[in-house]
Amino acid sequence: MYRYALQIEYDGSFYKGWQRQEEGVPSVQEFLETHLEILTKEKVTLHGSGRTDTGVHATAQVAHFDLKTPIAPYKIQRGLSFFGREKGISIIDISDVNHLFHSRFSARERQYHYIICNRFAPPVLRAGKCTHIITPLDFEKMAKACKKFEGTHDFTSFRDQACQGKTPVKTLDEFSLTKRGDFIVAKIRARSFLHHQVRIMMGTLIQIGHGKMKEESIDALFELKDRSKSGPTAPPHGLFLTGILFDQEVFKEPYREIF
Amino acid sequence: MYRYALQIEYDGSFYKGWQRQEEGVPSVQEFLETHLEILTKEKVTLHGSGRTDTGVHATAQVAHFDLKTPIAPYKIQRGLSFFGREKGISIIDISDVNHLFHSRFSARERQYHYIICNRFAPPVLRAGKCTHIITPLDFEKMAKACKKFEGTHDFTSFRDQACQGKTPVKTLDEFSLTKRGDFIVAKIRARSFLHHQVRIMMGTLIQIGHGKMKEESIDALFELKDRSKSGPTAPPHGLFLTGILFDQEVFKEPYREIF
Repeated sequence: MYRYALQIEYDGSFYKGWQRQEEGVPSVQEFLETHLEILTKEKVTLHGSGRTDTGVHATAQVAHFDLKTPIAPYKIQRGLSFFGREKGISIIDISDVNHLFHSRFSARERQYHYIICNRFAPPVLRAGKCTHIITPLDFEKMAKACKKFEGTHDFTSFRDQACQGKTPVKTLDEFSLTKRGDFIVAKIRARSFLHHQVRIMMGTLIQIGHGKMKEESIDALFELKDRSKSGPTAPPHGLFLTGILFDQEVFKEPYREIF
Repeated sequence: MYRYALQIEYDGSFYKGWQRQEEGVPSVQEFLETHLEILTKEKVTLHGSGRTDTGVHATAQVAHFDLKTPIAPYKIQRGLSFFGREKGISIIDISDVNHLFHSRFSARERQYHYIICNRFAPPVLRAGKCTHIITPLDFEKMAKACKKFEGTHDFTSFRDQACQGKTPVKTLDEFSLTKRGDFIVAKIRARSFLHHQVRIMMGTLIQIGHGKMKEESIDALFELKDRSKSGPTAPPHGLFLTGILFDQEVFKEPYREIF
C-alpha cells in the first residue's frame, strides 16, 4: 500500500460541504474520489482531516488515501488540479507519506480564518468569500472579547446541539482579530473543534461588536452551558479552513492564509 | 448644479473596461450612467479618474457627475449598490463636492496593485483576481529590479504603441513588491500613467523573475525607447486600481488595498 496526503484549496460555494453524501449531492470528497479513480484506475477512499460545512472554504484542507500501485505524486497533483480548476478545487501540495500518517488522527492543530466585511457597500471583489455586515461593529471590543475563548473551557454553549463530540471541553491555542481596512480577519487555532464551534463563537463576537452582548457574557456562557444563550451561528461563506499541523512535516507550508 | 464623487469597487471580469463604448458593449461607465438615470430621472454623464482596460478590477475608482436637483448622497450610494451588487459593482463611498472638483484633473496620485500567484496549483479562491504563473519567479531579483522604475524616466519602452499620452516622461512615486505565501503583490503609485504602463512594467519584471532579462535591462530600456524590446503586457485580471489621491480630502480613505 502506498499512502499519499493532499493539501487542498477549495471554493466551498461549489459544494454541499466536504463529506460524501447520497448520490447526486456535490461534495469535495466525492469530486476528488471520482477523479482519483479516473487517474489511478483504483477505487479510492479519501480520509479528510475534518469535515467542512456547506459553503465553507479551505486554503489547506488535508486528506490521505492509499494506492496499490504507486504513481508519481506530481502526476496526481497535476491531474486533480486539471479536473478541479473550473470546479473550485486545486491541489496545493502532495506528499507520499508512511502508513502511520493519518490526516485525522495525526493532526496536532487545526487553523481557521473568518472574514467579515464591515461597511455599507457590498464586497463585490470578495463576493461569497466573506460575511457582509452593514451595521458598524466595535472592533476593539471584539478583539478584547475574543481573548476569552483562548485556553481550556467547556464549550457546550458554543457547539451545535447536534454535535456528537465526546467532550465539550476544548483548548484554543489562539483566537486573534485583525483589522484590514473595512475587513475584520479572525484567526483561530486549536487541536480540534466542536461542530459549528468557530461559527457560533464568531456569531457571539458579532453580538458583542453590535453591543447586544458584553465581553463578560462569554464567561457566563462557559458557566451556563446552554447553546440557546450564545450568539447565532455565523454564515459559512466567511469561514476558511486554513491549515492542519501534524507531528511530522508533511507539506512545505502547513498553513496558508487567505487575506 | 450639484456635483457628486463616487468611490467605486468593481469586478472587471463583468465588463469590457471602464469606458462607455458602442451600444451593447458592457462597461462600468455605461452601467452606472444608466442606473443613475433611473435613480435621479436626469441624464447623467460620469467622468472617471482614468480608464481601466477590459478585465482590470478596481477597489477605489473615482468618478464624478452633476445633478440639477440635489439628492441625499446615501440614497445614490444605496440605489447604485443595490443595482450593482449582482453585477460586480459597489459604491464604497460617495461625497458631495464643490464644482471645482474634477475626478480626472484634481487627481494628484493614482495607485495600482498587481497580484501574481506563483505556484503550480491554480488559485481557485482568487480565480480571475490574480495572474497565475506556474514557473518559479525569483522574488528577490524582481523586488530589487522594480526599484529602477521609481523616479522620473522616459517610459516609451513601457507604453502601448497606441498610447496617446502627450509625453512619455512620467514620475513613479513608488514601486514595491511584497511576498505573501505563494503570492507576489506589487504596489505602484504615480501622478499618472501611460497606456498599459503598469502591465508592461509587470511583464518586464516577470521576465526578470524568470531570468530571461536582467535588472540592468530596465536602464537599457529607458535609453532604447523601444516598446518591442521590453516584456509582454501582463494579463489584465491581476491588475487592480486601488485608489486616487486628491488635493482635497474627498473620501474617508483614498486607498483601498486588496490583499
